[in-house]
Amino acid sequence: MTTVQQLPERMRKFIKNLHIRKIRDADQKFIAEGPKIVQELLNSTFTIELVVVRTDVVETQQELITTLLKLNIPVYTANNYHFEYICDAKSPQGVVAVASFYHQLITPVTSFIALDGINDPGNVGTIIRTAHWFGVQTILLNKGSVDRYNPKAVRSTMGSLFHCNVIETDLQQTLTEYKQTHELYGATLEATLPIEECEPQQNFGIIIGSESHGISPVIRKLLSHEYTIMGAGLAESLNAAVAAGISLYHFTMFVE
Amino acid sequence: MTTVQQLPERMRKFIKNLHIRKIRDADQKFIAEGPKIVQELLNSTFTIELVVVRTDVVETQQELITTLLKLNIPVYTANNYHFEYICDAKSPQGVVAVASFYHQLITPVTSFIALDGINDPGNVGTIIRTAHWFGVQTILLNKGSVDRYNPKAVRSTMGSLFHCNVIETDLQQTLTEYKQTHELYGATLEATLPIEECEPQQNFGIIIGSESHGISPVIRKLLSHEYTIMGAGLAESLNAAVAAGISLYHFTMFVE
Repeated sequence: MTTVQQLPERMRKFIKNLHIRKIRDADQKFIAEGPKIVQELLNSTFTIELVVVRTDVVETQQELITTLLKLNIPVYTANNYHFEYICDAKSPQGVVAVASFYHQLITPVTSFIALDGINDPGNVGTIIRTAHWFGVQTILLNKGSVDRYNPKAVRSTMGSLFHCNVIETDLQQTLTEYKQTHELYGATLEATLPIEECEPQQNFGIIIGSESHGISPVIRKLLSHEYTIMGAGLAESLNAAVAAGISLYHFTMFVE
Repeated sequence: MTTVQQLPERMRKFIKNLHIRKIRDADQKFIAEGPKIVQELLNSTFTIELVVVRTDVVETQQELITTLLKLNIPVYTANNYHFEYICDAKSPQGVVAVASFYHQLITPVTSFIALDGINDPGNVGTIIRTAHWFGVQTILLNKGSVDRYNPKAVRSTMGSLFHCNVIETDLQQTLTEYKQTHELYGATLEATLPIEECEPQQNFGIIIGSESHGISPVIRKLLSHEYTIMGAGLAESLNAAVAAGISLYHFTMFVE
């Protein structure tokens, strides 16, 4: 196909269904919204299956469309109504891609960040983006958390998802292995060790728990150190992505 | 009123309308969702006008309801359908309050954070929450940004909104005044001064711009220092709330 066609009805349904995790897992496909994120997909090892462009932005997205067609990636148009139907975001920028899962492997890693029970897709996506910023390219998610292909999580990574090792895993088992080679630092509200005093001497793992439940007990037992981000004692807690951001900022100062 | 009544239709409409900024501004009222946030309202100087509880959580929220009724705050019940209609969040926890605006004044402040053109309500709310955590209780928002009473912003503050001075202002004018007494630090992508090397000698202001446009030129001219949060050069930018969090963490280390 070297021309742009109208999105057929059966494909609208197919894309809409990718909002459901079970169907994503079965089809091994996910949606990625926004021209910037589609561009990041193009610059990655991921495979784009198709792209849908909203009719009113076809003209402004001509360059992207030409690139896609040259690569033999099918491009479809959809009117406003149909486009909104297939999208997750309320005000998407008129471009959405369907891409295939890419299976990243747990390889011997340098430092990493692990998320234990973080259920907010925006937070998970933002943490992936922040880890990528600071050069921590392995992000572990425990099974049962928000999946990395959740449309909002994908959007919040701003494309960093396609350049990092984001791995869903049995966190207890994986951390048990990594404990041999890594210092495991967990952020807890009860800790007395201030983050400023943490100075990892070797590769490290940062473990961030959920805002409401913290790090789960089985994981907590595996920690080398519990640390805290001291506040003024006024607010009850920090947002998980902010706590992860401060932690990544601090710990990566010790990476050569 | 000392008993719980069904939410009348005209009030459903009234609450639903508070999702619109113009109407909030005209009525000087806003909605705050979730039992935790309603509790924080009770512990603040804000006035609660009424509370709506979803029928299925009346039993579990009995303690809160009793407290509200004792304070002569009207409490209404609504079924699932009507409750969803008045709420902003997709899965609200069954409690929503209507409260009155509270006019905070710009008083001579110690240190503060100013947000220039941040349009994501979740980011604005998270930054207020983080500033509160670190004891920076004055947050300036320039006019034209997301308003502090946006339902999602309110939710994201986790109640910190009710305990901080969150002030909408002409940022250029206000910062021109503060420049006499404060060191003004702005996070920019182009700066060469790493945040680690910033050591304020007096009260400071942190200025955070939007992710897409940065700090606006008129504000940038007022800065005492531009700083950057150095990354590994892999990702394009940091999320605004994460950048603000790292900045607050760093700068408050220099507060006595």
